[in-house]
Amino acid sequence: MADMTSTADAPRSPGRPRSIRADEAIIEATLDLLAEGSTIEALSIEAIATRAGVGKATIYRRWAGKDALLLDALRRLKGVMAQPAGHSVRDDLVLLVGAIGKNVDPRAAKIMPCLAPAVNRSADQFQLYQNIISPRRQLMREVLRRGIDEGVLRADIDVEVTMALLTGPMLIQRVLQWNPDLDEQSLPERVVDAVLEGIQVR
Amino acid sequence: MADMTSTADAPRSPGRPRSIRADEAIIEATLDLLAEGSTIEALSIEAIATRAGVGKATIYRRWAGKDALLLDALRRLKGVMAQPAGHSVRDDLVLLVGAIGKNVDPRAAKIMPCLAPAVNRSADQFQLYQNIISPRRQLMREVLRRGIDEGVLRADIDVEVTMALLTGPMLIQRVLQWNPDLDEQSLPERVVDAVLEGIQVR
Repeated sequence: MADMTSTADAPRSPGRPRSIRADEAIIEATLDLLAEGSTIEALSIEAIATRAGVGKATIYRRWAGKDALLLDALRRLKGVMAQPAGHSVRDDLVLLVGAIGKNVDPRAAKIMPCLAPAVNRSADQFQLYQNIISPRRQLMREVLRRGIDEGVLRADIDVEVTMALLTGPMLIQRVLQWNPDLDEQSLPERVVDAVLEGIQVR
Repeated sequence: MADMTSTADAPRSPGRPRSIRADEAIIEATLDLLAEGSTIEALSIEAIATRAGVGKATIYRRWAGKDALLLDALRRLKGVMAQPAGHSVRDDLVLLVGAIGKNVDPRAAKIMPCLAPAVNRSADQFQLYQNIISPRRQLMREVLRRGIDEGVLRADIDVEVTMALLTGPMLIQRVLQWNPDLDEQSLPERVVDAVLEGIQVR
């Protein structure tokens, strides 16, 4: 029941149980602090607890430490992963490429580009970044392998290089606005079609 | 003559004329301040002058303003542009792709990734970034157009998308260490060969 975690000294509120509201507040505080310019290194559990209005123990009950909390918070920025329908390899790739570098939360524009320097600075942060993106990479790998199994894609293609060809253009255009002569809207389809040209069975 | 710009109150030094030494000191001061963590916005001509040991007027005699100075300084980080030999389209593309995200100056690793957030923050900085990379993009465009003229590449390819396919994988791998399963050393050749597969005349 929704209010089972409420205690006598807290005002009853409708809706989510208190523990979920605390989790939300902690995630929100983390993202707010990052969006306001705190670096990942400088961010402390103490600062997050203060901002969220909870005790540090509340955070440690839910997350093993700062990295685990950051992983949840940064995944939140990216939203739910796109799920390929599994009918057409081309459609599935257009869906996955279209989701690259896209974020559902407006704070992402301030937070995500700052990950690049962080990734190069420490092994922990490299791992954090990999933990965020590797499930998405895996989805794309599965679509390509399915394409090979179904005989749509050539069996001798280099799957990892193909993934980089699909991902790189979209990422540099969305994150760096790499080439003003490229239309971001049509880019997923154009990239997928250009890559398919080299990897599909004729 | 090398010492013509020396004045009586400065000790004579062998080698470069004083104005060139001042230019060098100003560029070096700019790069040092950025590498030490100054943001592009926060960097002032005053701070650069102090660090370089010159007056602000010396800087303004040589550069129109901060953006012009930054452009020279950041171009210095990237070193001399690779020059395609013009014999083989494949070799030229491998050369250009191999130079992507490569910097000759060790301060670049600290400075360049921080450009990404800056690029998205202001039109000036977007323009600065474009001024650095557009000559490199143009070199690649010319190689592709030459390939079309020579009948090596199909005439119906989308040159801008092809450039993004060649550039994106290398840039995300060098700057973000995007995929630990990709070998950076062999990536230029593998990317070029994969892209050629889709665009060459058969």
